[in-house]
Amino acid sequence: MSKKLINDPDNLISELIAGMLSAHPKHLTTQGVTGRAIVARNGPREGKVGIVIGGGSGHEPAFAGYVGQGLADAAPLGSIFASPSPAQIVDAGLAANGVAGVLFLFGNYTGDVMNFAMAEEEMAKHGVTARSFVTTDDVASAPPDQIDERRGIAGNFFVFKVAGAAADQNASLQEVEEAARRANAATRTMGVALSACSMPQTGKANFEIPDGEMEIGMGIHGEPGIARIPAESADAVTDRLMTPIHSELGLMVGDKVAVLVNGLGSTTLLELYLLHRRVAEMLSDRRVEIHNSWVGEYCTSLEMGGASVSLMKLDDDLQAWLDHPCDTPALQIGAPRDPLIASAPNIPNPRSQEANSPTNL
Amino acid sequence: MSKKLINDPDNLISELIAGMLSAHPKHLTTQGVTGRAIVARNGPREGKVGIVIGGGSGHEPAFAGYVGQGLADAAPLGSIFASPSPAQIVDAGLAANGVAGVLFLFGNYTGDVMNFAMAEEEMAKHGVTARSFVTTDDVASAPPDQIDERRGIAGNFFVFKVAGAAADQNASLQEVEEAARRANAATRTMGVALSACSMPQTGKANFEIPDGEMEIGMGIHGEPGIARIPAESADAVTDRLMTPIHSELGLMVGDKVAVLVNGLGSTTLLELYLLHRRVAEMLSDRRVEIHNSWVGEYCTSLEMGGASVSLMKLDDDLQAWLDHPCDTPALQIGAPRDPLIASAPNIPNPRSQEANSPTNL
Repeated sequence: MSKKLINDPDNLISELIAGMLSAHPKHLTTQGVTGRAIVARNGPREGKVGIVIGGGSGHEPAFAGYVGQGLADAAPLGSIFASPSPAQIVDAGLAANGVAGVLFLFGNYTGDVMNFAMAEEEMAKHGVTARSFVTTDDVASAPPDQIDERRGIAGNFFVFKVAGAAADQNASLQEVEEAARRANAATRTMGVALSACSMPQTGKANFEIPDGEMEIGMGIHGEPGIARIPAESADAVTDRLMTPIHSELGLMVGDKVAVLVNGLGSTTLLELYLLHRRVAEMLSDRRVEIHNSWVGEYCTSLEMGGASVSLMKLDDDLQAWLDHPCDTPALQIGAPRDPLIASAPNIPNPRSQEANSPTNL
Repeated sequence: MSKKLINDPDNLISELIAGMLSAHPKHLTTQGVTGRAIVARNGPREGKVGIVIGGGSGHEPAFAGYVGQGLADAAPLGSIFASPSPAQIVDAGLAANGVAGVLFLFGNYTGDVMNFAMAEEEMAKHGVTARSFVTTDDVASAPPDQIDERRGIAGNFFVFKVAGAAADQNASLQEVEEAARRANAATRTMGVALSACSMPQTGKANFEIPDGEMEIGMGIHGEPGIARIPAESADAVTDRLMTPIHSELGLMVGDKVAVLVNGLGSTTLLELYLLHRRVAEMLSDRRVEIHNSWVGEYCTSLEMGGASVSLMKLDDDLQAWLDHPCDTPALQIGAPRDPLIASAPNIPNPRSQEANSPTNL
């Protein structure tokens, strides 16, 4: 289990960044002194709130995979499962700055909360207003009466998307923050772990789950879950994950949701589709409509085995923000707007220019 | 390693199909008597050559993930690592039929070759001309003088894309077949396996690779490779994979390529980016230009550990076909054309109608 295709573990993150830039040169670049800030080539612009998302590495495609037009402007990359440093965050923040303020979005982890707060202060010294929004979608990490203590996991995908869209529509910093708050409040995630991942530095597993068992609610860095249970069928596991999500969101007949079935690393897409099948069945039984679904690896935990289910309960605004076009390495919605990244140069694209004019946003 | 999120293994493929349809209802439907043919809602149309891709399940997102407008019209789903039956293929073929002929595209495996040939005959009885094109991109599976004996692996991604684009541009059956031939001739893949996958039916591994070893050239169903070697660094492995690819394609200064770094299942995206970093470095040293790259899981082998590198050497036609828009669950290039699947209903899309007129294709 400890075999990995890596070089010197000390160079892991800089090589990851070099790899991402080499694969997505039209989308991504780096900026700043730390070498750890990945920046959207066509993201930051004057008058737009800068969106910075981040956290540790090891969750690919999160976070840098969501950097691009219409979503995040920059992401500082921490080391494996470790928060980026304040200096790395400031690099990303200054790159994202369009003199309309910068919003930092990240999951609720002690190291991230501390470092992003220090980066906020540092940004102020540069004359840039930065504010932090912390995602807390993991229902398993604290009871409902301590909802602010919860960790942020795969459901941050929805919060990032909504905030990125609001910013792209030239909403103010306060409005973007409010959009993120609404997305986070409407999002719940619950996961199951089947097998551990191993740390690239040591080759050692970060925890152990015996054969024939699974752990409900385990965090994406191996934080303890709420129950270690005998292995169950896909349907039974999905029911376990969906029940608290459904109940906390108070879903009623006629409601609309977005669904994310996320793989943690080594669980196959085939299995993830089985989970989605059951999610869709349960929602259909309760006459809740699925507006859109994503099934795949959106926030991993290296090669951990397992999956999570996230639901965002939609209102008209959240739905429109979710549908807003974006063009990033890990998520493309709608048409690319910038001629530089239009993928069909041989076909005239009447949208390219129009959509770049602010009146169309 | 044998823990999986499944229900009754006997229902695995029908539940996979139900899961895919539930997640992608705007893209996918089923058609035919076998229940095993996934069909693009906006793919088949009168006068267009029907594109059918297929093979066994267990390679998700291949093959059904590439069904959609501009790419494949239908995919019959075989059982895990097993060819679809002739009846299942015929279901897909009839669904894809637009009275301009149907092209079957699949990897070079005995079962597939036999079953697709039988389906061709069956199609003829229905009055539909179907022809088969077999992909053979795996350099490790036979020497250059037996190139037609080679297996088809992840590089089929490029062949499907090119054929799908040519068909979408209303090329004739013969022209689409010729496009596929050119794409296949310009594509080479080589892979490395680090760890086995286990069969959903039995929970047993299909082979074993001891700790500290890797196998170069292993097939996507565990077919023996060409060398079992001590584990190496990402760079050293990439050099091993790239050397024969580079040499067989005869890449020269000024040439252009498309790159696919494909994960086989449990290898992380982080590692795949490290491989791409080295691929890009080698190509840059030789002054070969990368036109476009894909890094991720495009043709898996359940949760096998390992990766493959595919290169397609581009000419102007291949490049244009690669850039041609498509909208499928696993691959979206350019703007969705059909209003039904446009993802941004709140924004006017002047392309939607124009691009549907044949003059624009």
